[in-house]
Amino acid sequence: METQFPNPNPNPNHTDETESDDPTTRRIRRLSLHLLNHPDHDDHDQQLQTVTCGASKKKKNKLEVDTARLSECMRGKHRDIQEKVFEYFNARPELETPLEISRDEHRELCMRQLIGLVREANIRPFRYVVEEPSKYFAILEAVGGVDMSLGIKMGVQYSLWGGSVINLGTKKHKDKYYDGIDNMDYTGCFAMTELHHGSNVQGLQTVAKFDPLTDEFVIDTPNDGAIKWWIGNAAVHGKFATVFAKLMLPTHDTKGFSDMGVHAFIVPIRDFNTHQPLPGVEIHDCGHKIGLNGVDNGALKFQSVRIPRDNLLNRFGDVSRDGKYTTSLPSINKRFAAMLGELVGGRVGLAYSSVSVLKVAVSIATRYSLLRQQFGPPKQPEVSILDYQSQQHKLMPMLASTYAFHFATQHLVEIYSEMKKTHDEELVGDVHALSAGLKAYVTSYTAKSLSICREACGGHGYAAVNRFGSLRNDHDIFQTFEGDNTVLLQQVAGDLLKRYKEKFQGGTLAVTWNYLRESMNSYLSQPNPVTARWESADHLRDPKFQLDAFRYRTSRLLQSVAVRLNKHSKTLGGFGAWNRCLNHLLTLAESHIESVILAKFIEAVKSCPDASTQEALKLVCDLYALERIWKDIGTYRNVDYVAPNKAKAIHKLADYLSFQVRNIAGELVDAFDLPDHVTRAPIAKQSEAYSQYIQSAGF
Amino acid sequence: METQFPNPNPNPNHTDETESDDPTTRRIRRLSLHLLNHPDHDDHDQQLQTVTCGASKKKKNKLEVDTARLSECMRGKHRDIQEKVFEYFNARPELETPLEISRDEHRELCMRQLIGLVREANIRPFRYVVEEPSKYFAILEAVGGVDMSLGIKMGVQYSLWGGSVINLGTKKHKDKYYDGIDNMDYTGCFAMTELHHGSNVQGLQTVAKFDPLTDEFVIDTPNDGAIKWWIGNAAVHGKFATVFAKLMLPTHDTKGFSDMGVHAFIVPIRDFNTHQPLPGVEIHDCGHKIGLNGVDNGALKFQSVRIPRDNLLNRFGDVSRDGKYTTSLPSINKRFAAMLGELVGGRVGLAYSSVSVLKVAVSIATRYSLLRQQFGPPKQPEVSILDYQSQQHKLMPMLASTYAFHFATQHLVEIYSEMKKTHDEELVGDVHALSAGLKAYVTSYTAKSLSICREACGGHGYAAVNRFGSLRNDHDIFQTFEGDNTVLLQQVAGDLLKRYKEKFQGGTLAVTWNYLRESMNSYLSQPNPVTARWESADHLRDPKFQLDAFRYRTSRLLQSVAVRLNKHSKTLGGFGAWNRCLNHLLTLAESHIESVILAKFIEAVKSCPDASTQEALKLVCDLYALERIWKDIGTYRNVDYVAPNKAKAIHKLADYLSFQVRNIAGELVDAFDLPDHVTRAPIAKQSEAYSQYIQSAGF
Repeated sequence: METQFPNPNPNPNHTDETESDDPTTRRIRRLSLHLLNHPDHDDHDQQLQTVTCGASKKKKNKLEVDTARLSECMRGKHRDIQEKVFEYFNARPELETPLEISRDEHRELCMRQLIGLVREANIRPFRYVVEEPSKYFAILEAVGGVDMSLGIKMGVQYSLWGGSVINLGTKKHKDKYYDGIDNMDYTGCFAMTELHHGSNVQGLQTVAKFDPLTDEFVIDTPNDGAIKWWIGNAAVHGKFATVFAKLMLPTHDTKGFSDMGVHAFIVPIRDFNTHQPLPGVEIHDCGHKIGLNGVDNGALKFQSVRIPRDNLLNRFGDVSRDGKYTTSLPSINKRFAAMLGELVGGRVGLAYSSVSVLKVAVSIATRYSLLRQQFGPPKQPEVSILDYQSQQHKLMPMLASTYAFHFATQHLVEIYSEMKKTHDEELVGDVHALSAGLKAYVTSYTAKSLSICREACGGHGYAAVNRFGSLRNDHDIFQTFEGDNTVLLQQVAGDLLKRYKEKFQGGTLAVTWNYLRESMNSYLSQPNPVTARWESADHLRDPKFQLDAFRYRTSRLLQSVAVRLNKHSKTLGGFGAWNRCLNHLLTLAESHIESVILAKFIEAVKSCPDASTQEALKLVCDLYALERIWKDIGTYRNVDYVAPNKAKAIHKLADYLSFQVRNIAGELVDAFDLPDHVTRAPIAKQSEAYSQYIQSAGF
Repeated sequence: METQFPNPNPNPNHTDETESDDPTTRRIRRLSLHLLNHPDHDDHDQQLQTVTCGASKKKKNKLEVDTARLSECMRGKHRDIQEKVFEYFNARPELETPLEISRDEHRELCMRQLIGLVREANIRPFRYVVEEPSKYFAILEAVGGVDMSLGIKMGVQYSLWGGSVINLGTKKHKDKYYDGIDNMDYTGCFAMTELHHGSNVQGLQTVAKFDPLTDEFVIDTPNDGAIKWWIGNAAVHGKFATVFAKLMLPTHDTKGFSDMGVHAFIVPIRDFNTHQPLPGVEIHDCGHKIGLNGVDNGALKFQSVRIPRDNLLNRFGDVSRDGKYTTSLPSINKRFAAMLGELVGGRVGLAYSSVSVLKVAVSIATRYSLLRQQFGPPKQPEVSILDYQSQQHKLMPMLASTYAFHFATQHLVEIYSEMKKTHDEELVGDVHALSAGLKAYVTSYTAKSLSICREACGGHGYAAVNRFGSLRNDHDIFQTFEGDNTVLLQQVAGDLLKRYKEKFQGGTLAVTWNYLRESMNSYLSQPNPVTARWESADHLRDPKFQLDAFRYRTSRLLQSVAVRLNKHSKTLGGFGAWNRCLNHLLTLAESHIESVILAKFIEAVKSCPDASTQEALKLVCDLYALERIWKDIGTYRNVDYVAPNKAKAIHKLADYLSFQVRNIAGELVDAFDLPDHVTRAPIAKQSEAYSQYIQSAGF
């Protein structure tokens, strides 16, 4: 809940405004007004006076937006293959997921959808996983729009199971498995998570002992806590699993075995002919989930399951016939990091898909809010609910954030694709931290927004046909899988601290982090008491002010947490100190990610070729920036980075920008280019929404 | 997302702390330290140094809590009937709602549950709706724990349909319908909402024309927008409906009919023998909802449906045989207000039930967070995830809020029951505003918390068996029905403004609002620059400081919005001015409700008879208060109600109190007295949780 003390006296020249100032600060401000090239007082106050929520005045102050041009700015380069996906499913109504479907039917339908996509529509996602990830993510976005279960099922097959074979294995694995994975003959699972260990992957307890007599690994689940849990494709369809287990090699001393750390192994789990679980493999169903019930998550328990030595995915570490370990990477931790590093693609995909979900939700909520009318001035027609300040407050900053996230995740996909091609070291670090941070930040934001959208659409938002329920239930777990958001943000914070330390030891900073070099210096000086009072719209809408404010905050959080960590680690040790500063660290990570998002948005605005489109994007970007600053106003006030008058001006301008964005809200959601068969909600149809809604109930 | 600049230098005597002060304020502070009886600097800094997250240190600083005594403080007086409900359903496993159930089966099951409750367990909720509402709400809480659909189905039958007959009708209606409603022979609906009108009830378009020739009313749906929508019990089970329609009386002039405003009518909708819709009544199914699919919501369209004149629920207005209108209330608006006033019981029930949902969710999340271990210091056992500051931050203020809401809604139920008995005018106003405000505030908070709980429990929180999905899906609509939260908060704001105006015109203030009398005066003076710097734990944990801060904020918001409304109404008119200030008004309403909640919590702490229980409650109350103040710290900083040093101290103390509450978190949730068959989630079982979870998957 946001709170405020709106200025009871919006005229800034009124004497009341200085009520809380002491004589010294009053004098400073007066001086600053005389001495500085102070931008003129903003004129939006004047404009504000002329607009009301009434329909007749709506056109005033409205930007002209050419939806087609804006859409072009936003469109990815793989729209063609997305169209192909939509065409295929539009032509196969029998593959459409109905509102009510039992879990078992949903799983079978989802499998049929995936097989149809691959074998009938001949869309082959697997080749793009490595060769052209941006195209893979485009397919993922499109099939996720058909049914999110399908998107996840596809991700399990190609990105997790297939990706582990390709990225963690070597040529022999590719030769043997590529085609089967590609054509869906070799359905598989990614068996990492255990009942007792999700986030702490290094704590996994499943073991793979090498048996030199038979040249095999023996896979075992040593206790119930080590049962592989939540394994997609395992309950019904999977034939193989990439199993993550501690590699145990026989030693020639009394210890018997030496733990080489977690490695990945290909384990066949079902008979190719009978599809029954293989001996020693116990499979159970993880049961109903909140959402994604088209994906068959299962639990796997292994009892002396033997696999050939070749089934070790041996890119980062190998075992020879005589049980010797070879690796190019010197430590367990390095191998572990390299292994997990190959799996960041999943996070990129989730961040990207989460933005797609947000686009659908914000489109439905915005279109319905434009359609829906309720209450109005006496003896006048009722007004659109989007004309209410409260509804604008709920949805317009969300719409702005959707744009912001769009550009940020597009950037992430680009650098990820580049990394896959170049294997550039610096890029690897950048992609790792940014994918963790954006995945965490965006999915948390989307999850909250889905609830806000439902609520903003009132009773009709509660109808299943209008989508918010399934979007929320399906998307919910995006916050947890491929790395719990709270854990991922800590990785971002850890990365920042590492680079902070490097900076002071003369090291380099990754591309995304470069700003820290400058802003850390400006942090060390006190906030400028003069600029802290500037409040004109020109100043507040200056990208430099916005970015400086975001980065100042990040820098300050970084510097202060470094000091605190250092202090506490003396008494509490590293783990205790980290925990003592944990909320601080999470705030730092979020603040950094916000800085990156804003920077990318500002770049996108700058590079927009069309002037009026640029103006619209600038408006949206300003709302994003100022609303974020206002949300953290306590932070800025506490260090006097922003004086009280400026805080009020930011609040007022953010409300005003929400109102202006509302005036082009229809065009802004149209530019997402989501046809009615993707949004699907009757209340958001682009014509005759109410009639289509009534028809959906059988009238 | 909350943000912070934690003090990089926790020692308040360090000179850095004054970095942002100018010489004047530094001097003032030094003076204040010398001149005042300044409470000693808090000692929790010292204590903080001695605790780590490690299990071995957990017992330090831990309060001793006697769960049974605490539970006694919390227990309502109708626990006996709740036990009876639980016993009945525990003995009838065939009535348990399975995780997967089709919509149609769920509806039938829900009906069997309700009939079983009434006819077999002989629990008769109807008599308590009027006679002893607190007992009715206790039953509602218990059956909602069995299946929330059952709670809502029961509410539709007894509180909405039954309540409308009893509260809006007269003796003839009671005589005719009471027994049938009570024993479930007369199943019925509450047909108020229309497709185009939900919040704006005065905009309803269904008409009821009086036909003097036949002495009947003729009910008509004049257009598709007037179709009654979302009507519970209508799709399948209802035999009657209380239909809200504009009463049209024939005039003897050319106008033909005169609109007397919205009235309520009993309309039979299905044939008693065949259960088929009666002639002129078209019924469709509203289809799947996000949750509550055990309730059969339908849409009703009327075409010249004739009902006897006696079917007008005529308590506030009647029509005579010759078509003359009689009423004790002079205007359409007064009659409308009286009619809606009789329906506030629904809001009381929702606020109360929402707290029950929150209790279940916070119990599951807390118990699992105590059980679940992940990561730990090097070479030491993993720690409970509730030992992480981030997890405490997510759950402990939520636990504190649950306690706060418990006492506030208990108070609401009490004054509502008293109102039903005494019909005291002042109480009516108080109950109306407080039920609107608490319903809105609590249901919004619970809805957000359910998502946080799911996410805090990671992957296992996503298993349907662990409840968060169904709790969230079922509870979601609590934010919308019986009054959209955004609309209800405006009623609270409107009420505050009315009383504010009355105060300055010498009027009285209702009980709950009394504080405004004093605090408005203190608002008019400037914040005290000396107390604004006090930062000791004794001061911050003083209920007077906390309540003053809450109330200062409300008073200031009230005064400033009154000024703004006055100013804007000159140019924008009343409606435009209200909309221009809408976010401000909503914040005012929330702030007021928070003040009431805190006041009730402080009262509950004070009246607790047992010293150690009191200490525990005080701790929880302090966390509630300080966390709220910290969340709005920008507000307090902006008017210098709180100086930077105090802001930091509040932040630090809130974190520390979260840690202390964590140490008694198990006892605090145990005191909710929710047995395992109510919480049901395997991950929250009070013993052998993991094994029960594994068994639920078939191992």
